[in-house]
Amino acid sequence: MGGGATWAGTRMLEAQQQAGAASVHPFHGEHQAGIITPAQDRLHFAAFDVADITRSELAELLADWTFAAARMTAGLGAGSYGPTSGPYDAPPDDTGEALDLPPAGLTITFGFGPSLFDDRFGLGGRRPDALIDLPHFAGDALVESMTGGDLCVQACSDDPQVAVHAIRNLSRMAFGRASLRWSQLGFGRTSSTTRGQTTPRNLFGFKDGTANPRAEDSTTGAAVWAEKGDGPAWMAGGSYMVARRMRMTIETWDRASLREQETVFGRTKGEGAPLSGGTEFSEPDFALTGRGDSPLIAPDSHVALAHPSNNGGVVMLRRGYNFVDGNDELGRLNAGLFFICFQRDPRTQFVPVQLSLARDDRMNEYVRHVGSGIFAVPPGCREGESIGDGLFGH
Amino acid sequence: MGGGATWAGTRMLEAQQQAGAASVHPFHGEHQAGIITPAQDRLHFAAFDVADITRSELAELLADWTFAAARMTAGLGAGSYGPTSGPYDAPPDDTGEALDLPPAGLTITFGFGPSLFDDRFGLGGRRPDALIDLPHFAGDALVESMTGGDLCVQACSDDPQVAVHAIRNLSRMAFGRASLRWSQLGFGRTSSTTRGQTTPRNLFGFKDGTANPRAEDSTTGAAVWAEKGDGPAWMAGGSYMVARRMRMTIETWDRASLREQETVFGRTKGEGAPLSGGTEFSEPDFALTGRGDSPLIAPDSHVALAHPSNNGGVVMLRRGYNFVDGNDELGRLNAGLFFICFQRDPRTQFVPVQLSLARDDRMNEYVRHVGSGIFAVPPGCREGESIGDGLFGH
Repeated sequence: MGGGATWAGTRMLEAQQQAGAASVHPFHGEHQAGIITPAQDRLHFAAFDVADITRSELAELLADWTFAAARMTAGLGAGSYGPTSGPYDAPPDDTGEALDLPPAGLTITFGFGPSLFDDRFGLGGRRPDALIDLPHFAGDALVESMTGGDLCVQACSDDPQVAVHAIRNLSRMAFGRASLRWSQLGFGRTSSTTRGQTTPRNLFGFKDGTANPRAEDSTTGAAVWAEKGDGPAWMAGGSYMVARRMRMTIETWDRASLREQETVFGRTKGEGAPLSGGTEFSEPDFALTGRGDSPLIAPDSHVALAHPSNNGGVVMLRRGYNFVDGNDELGRLNAGLFFICFQRDPRTQFVPVQLSLARDDRMNEYVRHVGSGIFAVPPGCREGESIGDGLFGH
Repeated sequence: MGGGATWAGTRMLEAQQQAGAASVHPFHGEHQAGIITPAQDRLHFAAFDVADITRSELAELLADWTFAAARMTAGLGAGSYGPTSGPYDAPPDDTGEALDLPPAGLTITFGFGPSLFDDRFGLGGRRPDALIDLPHFAGDALVESMTGGDLCVQACSDDPQVAVHAIRNLSRMAFGRASLRWSQLGFGRTSSTTRGQTTPRNLFGFKDGTANPRAEDSTTGAAVWAEKGDGPAWMAGGSYMVARRMRMTIETWDRASLREQETVFGRTKGEGAPLSGGTEFSEPDFALTGRGDSPLIAPDSHVALAHPSNNGGVVMLRRGYNFVDGNDELGRLNAGLFFICFQRDPRTQFVPVQLSLARDDRMNEYVRHVGSGIFAVPPGCREGESIGDGLFGH
């Protein structure tokens, strides 16, 4: 008992020593971390249903989560005693599996789903217009148990045990107030959010995220952050997240020829260069034709349909992860891409692009969207404030 | 086309440069790698059912797997072309998601389940006596779809994408010959197999594997490797693996007091020291008593029941991993420990210890065994040979 402060100080020091300053991202700030933060290697995403509680109890949950998240991202335990220093006859206020681990770049990002704005908490009048109910996309095969949620938490870290520890402890703190609706571990990031990061590969074996906007780009902020006047004041500095669980039919993909695979993407498999030539970061030339005057990049390829030049210049910040969740009863790996994107307004960014992809993308033969969520991600907060204070009006 | 050799050479060089020699474990040798190899951080385990094929087709599958495993552990593609250098009109002979990644200590370890020795392949007479059908243990709640298997593959690497790539490509090569029966990803090792490794923590938040034998110990070989005269000659230099999927009821555990948690383990949560005193590596003193003459380490604690001194000196090499596979419909994380152990003879090592634990361990309140497998892990092979050559008689 009473050893909390010492333990905290030691852990903080150790964390900084072991991980280096670059691997501790400040929790407090104008924006929430985990959006333009350099994409970490591992993800634990969780969507929650809020229980039958009052509006002030909901605000209190957010305050408790903010307190714990600020601590955990600094390498501390979820509660002020930590996992081993509390009273012997009470459960520890941290579960302990991250006790010896540095935070490894941990970020924790909170969001509010459309259902939070129904009549339970008197928040209906505060729902941002941009927080739409996503339309049905052609080919959607959504599973109810992997869709929606009143709240979401995205925990990213370079160490999966640290990300799991964060979700577990937040889930535990929410006991009786909110419960896990669905969740997803991701093991390989499929995007770069800063220029210093190499482009990773998805489970189709292709580089993913070559054309993702980067934090350093002057135009990225305008694509990601909601501004004053876009909608309710409490969302200024926030963003909108869309999460999609895309199951890949990798066994079918693995039987497709290299030619077909490259045609589907519109890029080479090795280098990731557009089929119109050049290297990974060369701009695709959709007008260039080859034999028989057919375009070198097929108009229904993924790169053509998703490219900003074919979507009125629209970009969004992707932050997805690969996943494998065992196998199904036919012996097929339950594998795919957990797609996450952030944007200023999904009505003009994710939705039109996805409508186009869902209709025409050659890749549709190999993917099936089984889970989905959309969340308003409020701005960051200062020390002493809580995430969502603006929403609750204090 | 024809670029395979160059690509292979480049990749090999890159792999060595990026990962350092210590992160490439030789595939060939007296024993299979992945047993006393320093435990890597990530696991992808898979159990397979063999299809209706002949004995020689089964031997051919093992030869194909050996060929691919030797390549992948060296940082090469599964096939001789690799993911991007083959003919354009054929599927690539590697799926490509590990193309830019070093092997990160990848090991691939093969095993044979009891069912392989039924009458399908004429191997009945070659089944080792030590490859028993595991008895029913008190409290077992085994799920058929996570139990058994004719063959198993344990892929371990410090990069999960590399481990997943290995299982995926072996599974793909087996198409029509063997199919995935069950599989498991693990993200945090729960043992140290060499003295240089720190003791990691399981999802109970306790250090796990403090008393694990280490590769450097002179007595470890005798506990792990089957010797000539132990059983069939083809198993000399091999080992026996037991895999158990242990679901933890972490929500219940998280409500237990620190005192109860430490009593269950018989160790302190922070340091991992035995409750009889000292530090992590101090020998537990089971005779030491405290107030009211009750032993400081409860006789039904996990450390007491599992300790060699209470099991006739028996040790086995553990090589387990933490897992979280989403959540159940009640919002509880589907989390636990994927226990793996290797030993010379499960009849005298795993079985008696587990019978004792299953009967009396205080930890049973918080765990449920839902998956199980036992496998004969044949010895390693030399270049030009295949894993299991001894079994098939050539």
